[in-house]
Amino acid sequence: MVPASLRWQGQLELLDQTLLPTRLEWIPCRDVDTLVEAIQSLRVRGAPAIGVAGAYGIAVAAGEAVRDRLAPDQARAHVLARGELLACARPTAVNLRWAVERVLNVLAGLPDDTDAATLAAVFLAEARGIHEEDIRLCTAIGRHGAAILPEGGVLTHCNTGALATGGDGTALGVITTAWGQGRRFDVFADETRPLFQGARLTAWELVERGIPVTVLVDAAAGQLLRTGRIGSCIVGADRITANGDTANKIGTYSLAVLAQAHGVPFFVAAPSSTFDLSMATGDDIPIEERAAAEVLRPLGVQAAPDQARAYNPAFDVTPAQLITAIITERGVIQPVTPEQVQAVLAR
Amino acid sequence: MVPASLRWQGQLELLDQTLLPTRLEWIPCRDVDTLVEAIQSLRVRGAPAIGVAGAYGIAVAAGEAVRDRLAPDQARAHVLARGELLACARPTAVNLRWAVERVLNVLAGLPDDTDAATLAAVFLAEARGIHEEDIRLCTAIGRHGAAILPEGGVLTHCNTGALATGGDGTALGVITTAWGQGRRFDVFADETRPLFQGARLTAWELVERGIPVTVLVDAAAGQLLRTGRIGSCIVGADRITANGDTANKIGTYSLAVLAQAHGVPFFVAAPSSTFDLSMATGDDIPIEERAAAEVLRPLGVQAAPDQARAYNPAFDVTPAQLITAIITERGVIQPVTPEQVQAVLAR
Repeated sequence: MVPASLRWQGQLELLDQTLLPTRLEWIPCRDVDTLVEAIQSLRVRGAPAIGVAGAYGIAVAAGEAVRDRLAPDQARAHVLARGELLACARPTAVNLRWAVERVLNVLAGLPDDTDAATLAAVFLAEARGIHEEDIRLCTAIGRHGAAILPEGGVLTHCNTGALATGGDGTALGVITTAWGQGRRFDVFADETRPLFQGARLTAWELVERGIPVTVLVDAAAGQLLRTGRIGSCIVGADRITANGDTANKIGTYSLAVLAQAHGVPFFVAAPSSTFDLSMATGDDIPIEERAAAEVLRPLGVQAAPDQARAYNPAFDVTPAQLITAIITERGVIQPVTPEQVQAVLAR
Repeated sequence: MVPASLRWQGQLELLDQTLLPTRLEWIPCRDVDTLVEAIQSLRVRGAPAIGVAGAYGIAVAAGEAVRDRLAPDQARAHVLARGELLACARPTAVNLRWAVERVLNVLAGLPDDTDAATLAAVFLAEARGIHEEDIRLCTAIGRHGAAILPEGGVLTHCNTGALATGGDGTALGVITTAWGQGRRFDVFADETRPLFQGARLTAWELVERGIPVTVLVDAAAGQLLRTGRIGSCIVGADRITANGDTANKIGTYSLAVLAQAHGVPFFVAAPSSTFDLSMATGDDIPIEERAAAEVLRPLGVQAAPDQARAYNPAFDVTPAQLITAIITERGVIQPVTPEQVQAVLAR
């Protein structure tokens, strides 16, 4: 199958990413509670994918109002309350609140006595618009990235493909776009501890697309780079500051240092919405720490003794000077300087 | 308990390291087959520990001859045959063949009609000698290393403690020696994928000694170094060439590059027997690749899809110029140059 994180087939359906790659199960989201649980349990993850799911979630909320035969004023209050619940499901994912609010903003243009069924139809149209927009963003990023992808093997980290977005992905989208254009190269995926998104999700996406993939433990990246088999590294981004400093999955910074030590280009691929221009540099980004169990109990199996502590930062910050270029849907930022960031985002 | 890899209590007993840290089980080795299986299944691992176990294994072989009432000539043939089986149990562990042959060399000084019981007693004495020597080596390495260990947190990789040796360890021995001298610092252990020796074994040893330990995924080392909490990195070695290039567990090279990028000293601790002066540089060391399942099925649980391949080098080579000093039982090699290697090993 062509990998996808979600689909609307008369109802919202999410691919349960916690079960991949061993089981492929779609979760029907007939109510908002199911969707909130799926977001919180990382059944759907990746900031763009969560945003699109949240947008559809407002249509799901209106569907609840139809089912419960709510009067127009009750229906309106219901979707607003459910929207707030959805927006808070993962507070750090800025795309989620943005997408939920964008769909709810449609309310302002509708008469107060609009019935629930009409709300559901209008919300669905708006959510589809957001979804199609995300697909277009991914396509543009893939095209811009493929144009500058050097010869040689490509090494990526975490999952930045169809499962992380509404479209074909960001960093992984660059790889699959170049492959789709007929180029052939070795693709390597860091397994990406602690949650193994590289081994579980990136490898699965590539296998499903018929692209051979080789998985390595994160600590083997230095040795792999040393063999000379890697022509470029490419990763996604959680947040990019005004100077180009990039917060992304833990391990990204280590990989960027190693790439520079071997003279290998290091690319970041992300939509322009990932930029947080309110922050001057990455020093302003707080580093969130996640649960110790992710480190001490990999895949649910106890590895370390009970009394061991864990250091588990969710992401790290890669300074702009280690990044060769940032690939956005508006074009390529290279060199990565505050001026170039501003110039490309203004297009 | 004080961590140990093996003991002789009327018989050879090995701590089953595959069950740590969740179960603590000693394997009685009443015959050589049990010991060979234990070595091949990594129930006992770490080159020095395997060597000591192999030495005791010759005494076990003589015990078999006593049990089977073999005549002197049969007993001698039996221990030689069993010795060859033992020496081949893990072909890459040079210490194993060295230790087995050293015990068997005792035969040359014994009359042909020496009975099996006498052989068993003499072999046991020689094996005990090798064990005690390993304990002394570890103690000396710990003392030399503690003397130069800088202030600040210490980050280590893989397991190089009592479980890897007959004594208190090499790199981990430096940490526990400094701690035993009353110094206090944060100890961080890379989990060390693919086999989790850091999370499973190093963390267990430190917990058993009452030393607080924090485990991190290997890819978080860059971020940890960036926080400034690490004063030094210290690792063991599988093989060191004449110029100081060091082969060690996969991930060591990545860590050395990161340490240098942050101006943090990077130490290697190993006995002088780890040096292979027949090799001029690390370029001569072939990089062995291990089974894909270690990467694709962490702790036996499927992570990646069936069709994914794996890149699984067992170790990597850290060039001498990334190593601040090599700590041996004969003293500290610093700077790491061919001349200094020769000078310290000649002591």
